[in-house]
Amino acid sequence: VTSAGPGGHRLLRDVGEDGVIRTVLTRYTRYGASPAFLLVGPGDDAAVLEVSDRVVVSTDTVVEGIDFRREWSSGADVGVKVAAQSFADVAAMGARPLALVVSLAAPPDLPLAWADDLAAGLDDECVRAGAVVAGGDMAQARQVVVTGTALGVLAGPPVLRSGARPGDVVALAGEVGASAAGLALLTAAGSPRAAIALTLSASALVPAHLAPRPFYDAGIEAAHGGATALIDTSDGLLRDAARVAAASGVRIDLDLGPLSPDAGLISAARAVGDPSLAELWVLTGGEDHALLGCFPVDHPLPPAFRPVGRVLQAEDGGGDVLVGGRPWTGSPGWQHFTGG
Amino acid sequence: VTSAGPGGHRLLRDVGEDGVIRTVLTRYTRYGASPAFLLVGPGDDAAVLEVSDRVVVSTDTVVEGIDFRREWSSGADVGVKVAAQSFADVAAMGARPLALVVSLAAPPDLPLAWADDLAAGLDDECVRAGAVVAGGDMAQARQVVVTGTALGVLAGPPVLRSGARPGDVVALAGEVGASAAGLALLTAAGSPRAAIALTLSASALVPAHLAPRPFYDAGIEAAHGGATALIDTSDGLLRDAARVAAASGVRIDLDLGPLSPDAGLISAARAVGDPSLAELWVLTGGEDHALLGCFPVDHPLPPAFRPVGRVLQAEDGGGDVLVGGRPWTGSPGWQHFTGG
Repeated sequence: VTSAGPGGHRLLRDVGEDGVIRTVLTRYTRYGASPAFLLVGPGDDAAVLEVSDRVVVSTDTVVEGIDFRREWSSGADVGVKVAAQSFADVAAMGARPLALVVSLAAPPDLPLAWADDLAAGLDDECVRAGAVVAGGDMAQARQVVVTGTALGVLAGPPVLRSGARPGDVVALAGEVGASAAGLALLTAAGSPRAAIALTLSASALVPAHLAPRPFYDAGIEAAHGGATALIDTSDGLLRDAARVAAASGVRIDLDLGPLSPDAGLISAARAVGDPSLAELWVLTGGEDHALLGCFPVDHPLPPAFRPVGRVLQAEDGGGDVLVGGRPWTGSPGWQHFTGG
Repeated sequence: VTSAGPGGHRLLRDVGEDGVIRTVLTRYTRYGASPAFLLVGPGDDAAVLEVSDRVVVSTDTVVEGIDFRREWSSGADVGVKVAAQSFADVAAMGARPLALVVSLAAPPDLPLAWADDLAAGLDDECVRAGAVVAGGDMAQARQVVVTGTALGVLAGPPVLRSGARPGDVVALAGEVGASAAGLALLTAAGSPRAAIALTLSASALVPAHLAPRPFYDAGIEAAHGGATALIDTSDGLLRDAARVAAASGVRIDLDLGPLSPDAGLISAARAVGDPSLAELWVLTGGEDHALLGCFPVDHPLPPAFRPVGRVLQAEDGGGDVLVGGRPWTGSPGWQHFTGG
């Protein structure tokens, strides 16, 4: 995504709400004609979409200072991130991304160019997902808060968290740990440029954190491939595996072998001074938006998925996750409000 | 809406994100079985809805300190307001409210009881609208920011802002000015209790501001009644009439007669010391979520609507609004970022 805001040095308060809307709307139409399913796009009271009979909807919020820092993330990065995390939830139902509506709450001294970049990032990731920005809202706040609500369409039944059965193969589509590693590099180095310079073999980790680019088709692959359960690993592999285990009333055992950190993660962990972090990032780092699925053992796994564990009979209601056959004793990953 | 939070004196940080989610989820199931169209409700990666072939979607955000104050609004008030403004946009397309997804960004020291009340208010207004809370998200922020995204279903074509034609009758469903008057009373008196005591004949104005309760069926009435254009007057009658005029390429002339302030508004304006405010509230006060529609002159108006003006030929592209045949020279109403 290129940053080519027409805003110059103007701020939101210089152009007002209507001016911001006029600016960002040009972003959403730069790809020419609207798709046929978008009967009414941005600009009326609501958007109107022509859909099949099942609609999937999910909402996600990112907050300045918590989920991103404006000195590290461009507006376009944040736009990509908001679209990515919303559509990853759509994909995690086995659905196809269709449309995104976005709310931007921002201080009046936010540069107009940043809001314009945000729109460009949103639009860019929507195009990547085969979707469209269908509408939005704007509000005034002390820090930037962006909420994306994604709609998707389902061709068949949704793939829930609750269908995993003992004996199923647990499989992963996409990488885990990259976003957490990217954040650690940024924290250690102080800027994206310095973080990338810190370890060139891990240079993909910083963009993986700032602007994740999930493979949404993995969700449809999983649905077609007979997945019994599916989840977006937005809060970390262990925490999200535990959600599947709890919803399905099973125990999940993850193998450390296929989850071994790759060279980039190992290099990043060394660069920030603690080689043991690489494994922690894989198991507890969130925001990668890899998909974790469970599949019947006699089905071939869809191309995007690789086996990383096994579903076991629960001993006591279910919900626990083992790593290499043993309970995990470290932190289970990020949680809002407590940070623990 | 009663405030009966089970949170006691606990704060969000005492129970963490998962604890907050467990608490609010009980609110969304208190009405028993889910409606048949809600195939998957809160608790998975996304909600799944069974719908007809046209879905309407709109998103709206309220921010603490800008759109509400926590010393004046209960969590339940804010929940009602978020649902109301989102569903009013759905109604303004001529659609029926179906579902709401909600994002709450809040500081860790927010009382759990407030979040629980918010959920109760959201649920209450959803029930009133014939809709359901289908899902949500939670994030950490310095001030409370709540984004509601409403989904609705359309039985026929959407009623846009752009279809008004010269000769149409301009008509209004619902009251305008009450929310602005309620805010003025609150500002003058300093608290909801004192504001209501300030003028008992205007006691409905304070709840009209804190927790608006629109008549959503007016949107469907308008669609069935042949409306050529329809808009939610969320930003004030003049500003929203101008949006219809601009989108339709027409001029709109509003009559002062049927828009005369009622006894409550006059009483409130006197109570805050400026009788001329009553007319200003009617013309420029937002957040009442009345519906403004345009109808062919030979159609009977639907029951919820009363005539308030006429659509005229535009002289120059359209977009201007007259009041009693003359241009309005005052402020056109609220705009974010500039406040002007």
